[in-house]
Formats: sequence, structure tokens, C-alpha cells
Amino acid sequence: MKTNPGRFFEDYRLGETIRHAVPRTLSGGERALYHALYPQRHAIHSSDDFAEACGLPRGVLDDLLVFHTVFGKTVPDVSLNAVANLGYAEGRWLRPVVTGETLTATSEVIGLKENSNGTTGVVWVRTTGRAGEGDPVLEYVRWVMVRKRDPGAPAPEPTVPTLSPMVSADRLIVPGGLDFTGYDFALAGEPHRWGDYDVGETIDHVDRVTVEDAEHMLATRLWQNTAKVHFDATHRDDGRRLIYGGHVISLARALSFNGLANAQILVALNGGAHVSPLFAGDTVCAWSEVLEKAETAAPGVGAVRLRLVAHKPEAPAGQLRTEGGKYLPGVLLDLDYWALMPV
Amino acid sequence: MKTNPGRFFEDYRLGETIRHAVPRTLSGGERALYHALYPQRHAIHSSDDFAEACGLPRGVLDDLLVFHTVFGKTVPDVSLNAVANLGYAEGRWLRPVVTGETLTATSEVIGLKENSNGTTGVVWVRTTGRAGEGDPVLEYVRWVMVRKRDPGAPAPEPTVPTLSPMVSADRLIVPGGLDFTGYDFALAGEPHRWGDYDVGETIDHVDRVTVEDAEHMLATRLWQNTAKVHFDATHRDDGRRLIYGGHVISLARALSFNGLANAQILVALNGGAHVSPLFAGDTVCAWSEVLEKAETAAPGVGAVRLRLVAHKPEAPAGQLRTEGGKYLPGVLLDLDYWALMPV
Amino acid sequence: MKTNPGRFFEDYRLGETIRHAVPRTLSGGERALYHALYPQRHAIHSSDDFAEACGLPRGVLDDLLVFHTVFGKTVPDVSLNAVANLGYAEGRWLRPVVTGETLTATSEVIGLKENSNGTTGVVWVRTTGRAGEGDPVLEYVRWVMVRKRDPGAPAPEPTVPTLSPMVSADRLIVPGGLDFTGYDFALAGEPHRWGDYDVGETIDHVDRVTVEDAEHMLATRLWQNTAKVHFDATHRDDGRRLIYGGHVISLARALSFNGLANAQILVALNGGAHVSPLFAGDTVCAWSEVLEKAETAAPGVGAVRLRLVAHKPEAPAGQLRTEGGKYLPGVLLDLDYWALMPV
Repeated sequence: MKTNPGRFFEDYRLGETIRHAVPRTLSGGERALYHALYPQRHAIHSSDDFAEACGLPRGVLDDLLVFHTVFGKTVPDVSLNAVANLGYAEGRWLRPVVTGETLTATSEVIGLKENSNGTTGVVWVRTTGRAGEGDPVLEYVRWVMVRKRDPGAPAPEPTVPTLSPMVSADRLIVPGGLDFTGYDFALAGEPHRWGDYDVGETIDHVDRVTVEDAEHMLATRLWQNTAKVHFDATHRDDGRRLIYGGHVISLARALSFNGLANAQILVALNGGAHVSPLFAGDTVCAWSEVLEKAETAAPGVGAVRLRLVAHKPEAPAGQLRTEGGKYLPGVLLDLDYWALMPV
Repeated sequence: MKTNPGRFFEDYRLGETIRHAVPRTLSGGERALYHALYPQRHAIHSSDDFAEACGLPRGVLDDLLVFHTVFGKTVPDVSLNAVANLGYAEGRWLRPVVTGETLTATSEVIGLKENSNGTTGVVWVRTTGRAGEGDPVLEYVRWVMVRKRDPGAPAPEPTVPTLSPMVSADRLIVPGGLDFTGYDFALAGEPHRWGDYDVGETIDHVDRVTVEDAEHMLATRLWQNTAKVHFDATHRDDGRRLIYGGHVISLARALSFNGLANAQILVALNGGAHVSPLFAGDTVCAWSEVLEKAETAAPGVGAVRLRLVAHKPEAPAGQLRTEGGKYLPGVLLDLDYWALMPV
Repeated sequence: MKTNPGRFFEDYRLGETIRHAVPRTLSGGERALYHALYPQRHAIHSSDDFAEACGLPRGVLDDLLVFHTVFGKTVPDVSLNAVANLGYAEGRWLRPVVTGETLTATSEVIGLKENSNGTTGVVWVRTTGRAGEGDPVLEYVRWVMVRKRDPGAPAPEPTVPTLSPMVSADRLIVPGGLDFTGYDFALAGEPHRWGDYDVGETIDHVDRVTVEDAEHMLATRLWQNTAKVHFDATHRDDGRRLIYGGHVISLARALSFNGLANAQILVALNGGAHVSPLFAGDTVCAWSEVLEKAETAAPGVGAVRLRLVAHKPEAPAGQLRTEGGKYLPGVLLDLDYWALMPV
């Protein structure tokens, strides 16, 4: 058989490194499409002049554009037969990526555990995105539940990796040269600086966007994500195409501009849950909670740890779970990340 | 509150200048998207070779792409709480913008007048788009009806600016170096030159396009226009998303290629009315009327003042108003602009 | 009349050459859009590093992107009044096109034959795409059935050109410098090399994509194809927009990555039939058949002639025709092309 059936649970070996296809060169085209697909306005990724004034190179690409590009490469090898995308941990952006660079990705299998039902198992991979095949630009751990091809295949020795519940502030990597001492708050769109945010504060981002099938398919193809469920209306019984979870992340992040316009750069992905599925015709809202703050050694640069929640209008902004601890109906995404802001 | 509630009528002061967020670098990506979103074929913006042969730099961006980019920046400060976009005047493109340039925008408040109902007022702003924060590339006056936050707030001294009904021909700015003496009519797509158009002549542009929600949202996001009504299907009672008026302008302008292929460059926006709303599923047609002609000092370059009307099929091409002087049902847009053509 | 009514059958003269409007400069923007519109992953067009490692210049554009750009230019002169697109022959890509280049197109009328009904005729044109107006990059023959304006117009002397049923292997042009001896199969996505494919072998490409109106209109506009039937929902009685046949070609080619990831470069278009129409909401599948194989003089490079079939789920993969020789219901496209692969 010439086509890729995807890997099944018994095809993974602990410690192996998978070199993913296909390398991808990113240009002003991908950058423009990112701005057309998401209501993104953060100034560093919108303006080369603004980036340069902050000590960064011209043509810096949005951090989530880099994430989706790397993630997309892993799909044919990691999640083509996945039942569920279970979580993220220990994600760090290691340096900015600029237009003209070519990205590749590898994943190391760091955990394997068969489920008690004998038909599925959990696979943990640590993925690294690189410029060319050299310089690492992004790393993160993802774990997925994957089907077994043969329920009779023997279970591997269970290995569950020990993962940090979050990236600690001292492990954040601030882009070289970043300097927010001359930061232009008017051009950036909001006056709120790092010092204005309090731990525990929540922000309802107010804006909403109703999504269309054409939009999420354009985006998901752009990241060369091949999961059939996003593109093929004959795949599910209900004839609907499941929207790529990363599309929800980028929608929510872009909506969060309204209230977090100065949270310019993502530096860590502490964790995240795709709580419920999104389909075309649904409307997405977002709110954030300030979880933690930290100083950095870079001039004028502070770090803020944020919870970003995407939800449908039926879930109230600022509320996440029922009294019983379950996510409220309508919650789509619960994401935990670190961003850099002017102090 | 960290999110932007937008300005209300009582928040504007006569003479103040608002510096808008967010600067935006335009590349071949935005240019390609413009050609995907609109059936645009004017040769100067399609071909760097053609532009160069006309004495222009390579990578010249469509004039309306520049307009939308500048306009989008003003929305969070000018029209987030607008009830209606009332008009444009004294618009001029001051020089071509090329790929790689970064645009910013400022607006000066030049008029304020509270309405007699005491709940809204009209705000006039003169907006200037610039390359970086220096060289002006576009200027225009826009006035909008804006809600008051507090109906009890005192009315300002009414100031209604005196605006020219049109930009006079002697005030048009022809791009430096423009030379149409070697103009290639075959490559441009039509043989009709400036001398072939008569004042009073109307042209039915024949082509039509049916619009989709995904398309106008991609466009409106690309211009970083944040008005909720374009994106959020829960915003209006009827569940429809109102299409950005500028999307209609670009659709009509692109349709006008068929009959006005040589009206290459926009140099002035004399006025315009968004007559009725457009929604996904509607079909847009366009016709033009030649209003005025003028010579220019540039070699081989003439100016033509045109009325561009976008309409739905129910309104007949070439007809604008009822006998009573009202716009005919189905008319969407009535725009008055100057363009440059080969003589 | 200023608008273009298109040419009718009696407007063509045997031997005349039509210089088409409008030249188009292609950038990273068009390249990114191609990757957003089609699930395209072939490594040479995705990665400048990969292209360079194969001896090609950076920024090589997908061969079908070049085809659509050239084809689009011919529509206003060749197929605006076409009743049917009847076939392709003798198509060859003559050298790679890279970002920054400007394409133009000309067509020579090589055949004319009025139909017996007296109301239509068949026009054969040989179209050449060029960089600037010099270097040819693509050539192909297309024939279309075109309406007569005046049924009483005299029929021309019938001239039916003799066309090769396929481009013979010795006439294929391998891009200068192409060298697959160091080809990286892991990065390209599949291990299958030229030697692994057998003549007669069929491959079901497994993946499917459901299409939306916004997508095909974005694509068709990007190629500046002006045929009304693709954009105007009022044009057909059933209110549906007919999807440009080239959109189906690119969808099927991109789906064929899964099983033919190493069929990197298209070098010839032997023939093709648009068997049945595609509309929004339909789901597209694809299968391929290996028709012929040939060696080339370039290091490590083999040529493979493939049949590419696009179909709806109702038609089974691997089957093309009924016992009576008709295409099976649900078949959309039957395309015959040559591609280059690592041996």
C-alpha cells in the first residue's frame, strides 16, 4: 500500500525520534493569511517597524503561526489515528521566526501506556520545531490517545513521563535583543502595562466571531494538517467537519487583543485542554485570567502567565467549571501560557 | 476595564488628533489576498513589469487596499459606537504605496454636532495615512453618527466643517514619474482611452459576484477592522453579519474593470454613500457614469471623474434614483472618485 | 460598447495570435494561498531548502499555480462564450517559475471547425505562458466549443489540427540542474521511489475534501479567471456556481500526495476531460493509475505518466467507466500527465 495509514499505538517505540515531513518555507503570504484568518492585531507581528523598535528583526511571524506549522507536520505521524488530543506541556518558543525561514519538525516518543480496554493507548511525544534542520525554535510535549491496529498486540511496559505542571518563570526564553523601554503604547493599541495586571484578575474580551467552514479549512490546510475530520463532511455521521483545535487557539488569542494588546509575545505553553468541539456556524468568545507574574532580565520586559478560555455565548465569561468541577457547557478551550509585556 | 469600549460622542474634542493603532506592514501576501478576494485585474497592480513600464516602482499596491488598511485603523477610535457611516469627502491618494512599507494613521477631529434627539451626534474626522509615521500617502474626511454614552452630557458648540463637494482637478496628485505614453492597451485588457469616454456616458459592467460570509470576514480582518457587526452572527437580531461597506467598494471597483480597465489609478475620493446593507448570499453588480474629465501635466495621463454604483440585480444598471429622488431599491453604493487613464 | 462581450466563433481566424491581458507578478502571497486553498504538500514547492537541495532555485511555484495563472489570462479571449471545455493536449512545462516573476500569455488559433448545427464551432488554440514577454514557461493546446454570434455567419474552411495523443517521453523537459541523487525521502513524506511503481498499478488516495463556494471563488479570482458561471449565483437556473475545472485538477493533484508524495514536478499534460460538474457541498476523492514510465538524463530523476481521476464518493476508486465505455456517475475529472520522481 502506497498511502499513509498513520501509525497505530503498537507502532511507537519509547525513545525513537520521528523526523516529520514536509519542510515549509514561510513568507509574507502566510503572515498575511494569518491576519485574514484571525482578528490578530498585536503590533510586533503586524508591523516590521514596531518589531524593529522593540529590538527584534523585521518580519517576525506570529508565535502561533509557528506553532501550527510545526504541529501540522506531526499530524501524519502522531495523530492520524488519534481518538483524542489529551494535552500539552512544557512548551517553549525558543527564538522568533522571520519570513523567509524554512521550518522542520521532529518528535521523540517519551511515554507509552496502553489503556485498560486494550484497544487504545496513550503516546507522549516531545516535538521540536527547527529552522532548517538546525536551530530549535519551538519545543512542546503533546500526548494523544491512539488506536491499536491489532487489539491482540502486546502492551508495552507503561512509561508515563514526569511533566512540569507549568514552565517556571526562570526557564522562559526572552528573544535576544528584546527591549520594551521605548514601547509605544498608543501604536500598540492599549495603555495597560505589566504593572496594571493583578494576579486573579479576569478580562472578558468582549468581541466575538462566528466561524465558517471555508475559513477553518483554509487555515488547517495552510498548516498542512492532514487530519481527515477537518476537511471531509462524509467522515462523521452528522456531516459536520470538526474544526482543528489550533484554529480555536488562534481565534481566542486574537480576540484577547481587546484587553491584552500588550501581551505581545508568547514564550511558553504550560498546558491546554480542548474541552469541546467547534463547528461552522458557532460563535466564539474569549476571556482571560491572570495566573502569575514574573520579572525578566530584559529591559522593560515583564512576563505574565495567563489562562485563555474560548467559549460559546452560552457559557458566561469568567466562569470555567461547575460546582462539581466539570467544565461548563459551551467552554471550548482552556489554555495556560506565558506572554511578554512592557512593564 | 481593560477592553476598549470605543469612544462615545462626548469623548471627542474639536481639534484633537488621534494616533491610531496598529501599524501594519504590507507585503506580497496582502496583495495576493486582494486579488483573491476581489476580481481585480487592473494591470499596474497586477504586474510589476507593467507598473515599471508606466514609470512606477515595482510592487505598487492597489489604492483601495491602502484605503482599507488606513480606514481599518480608525475603526476602534472612530466608529466602534457608530450608528451610521454618513459620508466621505476630500479624499486624495498622495503617492503609491509599495510592498514592504508600513502604514500608520492619524485622525483630526474637524467637526462635532449633537443631534436634536440628544442621544447621538455627528463627528467629522480628517484621517491621514502615512508610510511609517512620516510621509503621508492618503487623506480623507469621514463623518459618522456616534452614540452618546450619557444622554445628559452637555452638547458641544456645533461645528460643521465646510467640505468641497468634490476634489477639483487641479488638486489631483499624479504619482511622480507616471508616464502613459508607452501604455500597452493589449496587455491592459481594453483599447478604450481617455478620449473615448464622454461625460454623461454610462457603462454597465455586466459581471456579477455572489458574496459569502467567509470572504467578507477574511477581507475585513485583513484590514484589521474590528467592528463587531461584521463578524458576530449573534450581534444582530436577524443573525446576519453586515458586510463592511469597503468590501462593497472593492467589489464594485473590481467589477468595473470590464469597461474601465484603463482607469488604472485612483487619485481622489470625492464622496460616497453606503445606500443599503449587503449580506452573504446577495449578488453584486456595478455600473459607472462619467462625470467629468480633466487633463494632467503628466505625459499621456488624463483624469476622469466617475460615479461608481454597486447594486443588486433588482436595481437596473444605469438608474440611480426614483422620480422622487430617493435611491432605487437594490442600490448598495454610490461612489464618486477620480482615476487616471492613458489619453 | 465598452465591456468585453467575449469572442464568438466567427471572430477567430486560423493562424492569428492573441496577446492576452493581464500580466501578473507572482509572489509568496500566491504561493501561500495555493497552500491554503489545496491540501498541497509536495516538498519542492513547500520548502525552498528542499528545492535547493534538488538543484532548483528557491521560491519555485507549484506547476499548477503556473498553469492556472496562464489559463486564467486566456478566458476573456477564448472561453467567455464557450459552451464546453473539450480537451487539452501537448502540454509541457518548460522551466520552473519562481516568486517575483511576471507571467504573460499568448494563444495561436490552430484549428476551427463549425458544428453541423450551425450555432457553435470548435476552436483549437495553442497557448504559451511566458516570463515577462520572453522566456516560455508553459505551452498547451486547448479546444473549446464556442457559440456563434450570428448563426448565419459563413462557416470557415474546417481545420482540425493533428495532436499527439500524449507527449512522448523524449520530449519531456527536465528543469535544468535537477538532481534527485541526494533526495531526502523522509522529509518528502514517503519512501516510494520511481522503481516502486508498476505500470497498471492504481492508488486510492484515501483523503477527501468537501468544497465550499468561498474557496473556489477565492482560487478562481486569484487566477483572474473571469468566467461568470463561477461567481454569479444568478447565472444558472439552479442558483449554483459551477466550480472552475482547474480547481478540481488542483484538489485532485493535492490529494494525490498521499501515495504519490514523490511525484514532485509536473512536466507534461497529455490530456484531460472535465467529466462532470462540481458544486459547493460536494466531496472530492481521487485515485491514480500508473500509465507509463521512462528514464531521463537527469541524475536520479525518473518520469512517470499518470492518470489522475477526481470523483465523488459515489464512484468507486480505481474504476473509471461502465461496461459500455461511459464514465461512471460521480467521476469528475480524468487527467493524463507526466511527473518527475526520484528513481
